Amino acid sequence: MKLLTFMVDGVVRPGVLDGNGVVDLSAAGLPVDATGDLMCIVRGGDSLLGLVREALGSNQRREYALDKVKVCAPLFHPSKIVAVGLNYIDHCKEANLPVPSEPVLFTKWPNSITGPYDDLHWPESVTKEVDYEVELGVVIGKRGRDISEKEALDYVFGYTVVNDVSARDLQFANAKQWDRGKSLDTFCPWGPWIVTQDDIKNPHDLTVRTLLNGKEMQISNTKNLIFNIPQIIAYASQGTTLMPGDLIPTGTPFGVGFSRTPPVFLKHGDVCECEVEHIGKIVNKINLK
Amino acid sequence: MKLLTFMVDGVVRPGVLDGNGVVDLSAAGLPVDATGDLMCIVRGGDSLLGLVREALGSNQRREYALDKVKVCAPLFHPSKIVAVGLNYIDHCKEANLPVPSEPVLFTKWPNSITGPYDDLHWPESVTKEVDYEVELGVVIGKRGRDISEKEALDYVFGYTVVNDVSARDLQFANAKQWDRGKSLDTFCPWGPWIVTQDDIKNPHDLTVRTLLNGKEMQISNTKNLIFNIPQIIAYASQGTTLMPGDLIPTGTPFGVGFSRTPPVFLKHGDVCECEVEHIGKIVNKINLK
Repeated sequence: MKLLTFMVDGVVRPGVLDGNGVVDLSAAGLPVDATGDLMCIVRGGDSLLGLVREALGSNQRREYALDKVKVCAPLFHPSKIVAVGLNYIDHCKEANLPVPSEPVLFTKWPNSITGPYDDLHWPESVTKEVDYEVELGVVIGKRGRDISEKEALDYVFGYTVVNDVSARDLQFANAKQWDRGKSLDTFCPWGPWIVTQDDIKNPHDLTVRTLLNGKEMQISNTKNLIFNIPQIIAYASQGTTLMPGDLIPTGTPFGVGFSRTPPVFLKHGDVCECEVEHIGKIVNKINLK
Repeated sequence: MKLLTFMVDGVVRPGVLDGNGVVDLSAAGLPVDATGDLMCIVRGGDSLLGLVREALGSNQRREYALDKVKVCAPLFHPSKIVAVGLNYIDHCKEANLPVPSEPVLFTKWPNSITGPYDDLHWPESVTKEVDYEVELGVVIGKRGRDISEKEALDYVFGYTVVNDVSARDLQFANAKQWDRGKSLDTFCPWGPWIVTQDDIKNPHDLTVRTLLNGKEMQISNTKNLIFNIPQIIAYASQGTTLMPGDLIPTGTPFGVGFSRTPPVFLKHGDVCECEVEHIGKIVNKINLK
């Protein structure tokens, strides 16, 4: 199933996609977080997913046309975003950074979250080198710590698309701590939905792709991840509790802007599309006015 | 005022300290977050602080002896922790790292939060080099972005004590991204309360001190901060929205364990006390069994 957070009549609600229709899960009696987003459903686990399936099959469901609603980020306030850097060999090479022997973790602060079709913006006085990074995102569904690789996929709620937008000038200043350059407002557009795990046959064989103004800039496949999803979850959860709703962007492949000659940075009016096969596409326009 | 989160009869509540008594603010009708912590009061701003003062002065207040309650971390789920590194010159030197020209920001994930008197623990298979760092913590009280230095203190709710516990072996591996080594469970004990801004005459003249098993390991004063609080807030909020409840540990001075000869790392049974003048002291025992 494709679960999403959407707004209609000024009210944010959790929903499930059925073709081009969005079924309103709040109207179906599913529990709704104070923010209206999907958090209650992500926390609810399998029992709630059963109720979502019932709502989807009901002939009394309340449904909206997808193109008549505003699609929001699936979750507004995950307790944390644990992002993975340098997780494709060709990206390590273009960045002139060594291929890591363990997953490289950093954060995007939750203020960076924005919707899958929202405009991106930043103060031009703060950064002049903003770059795109398409990534497969993993959404955690179950609280856990010291999770083994073998059990790791049991902790996954589903998969999504993330653009790990990055201000390169900030990322590589700041004593080379990446967080600030990764966390400006609107630097984490994601969605447009979370595809539940049962609908993704193999998360390690999905094409990932970025188009900038229609031109292909990145294309790869999650089979090229240096550290796969179980390895990331096992590593990140060592001594560290993962919570339902935690978002794990799994890293970006070759083709980012700053490594090109000449470098390509996002500018006003650009349209950036990030897509992951079997999940969907997020489309964000740069709006600096 | 000293505001705290405490538990009695198994229920977490917001409170205010009066000498050795804790006045229960939930019983006084103040709004309480779902978790029971102080978040609603931090969000509420000046109007709610007026009601807290009334509750403190009321002759019908419900009060508990401080030594009969469990004192918890003041906030369980800040939207983010924006920590400052390398913010005392003598600490930069002992760490063999250059004195930065701008604040160095990194994160502690919220799973690291624990109470001011709780035990600290970690898997010994994951790290063998856990260190203490006493810091003055700033709690944000008002949502803001692109805040000027001049207005920055208007965004401060109050001050607190943080031990920025750090696994050095993890911090300096992981492509030198610090987050993971700073964010294991229990690596952010803080409190024991938030002192509201009006009660701290000068946040840039407070002694900060660490005792390990009764022996003084760190002593300095916040007048030695390289970047002061307005500079940190102005810098961190550039393009980045700060939220009420966001916690900003402002950096640690000279005297950490890993720079000593021989190095000192925390071990089972150790008792670590971190204190900040006019605020208070947090005391955490290391319990690895």
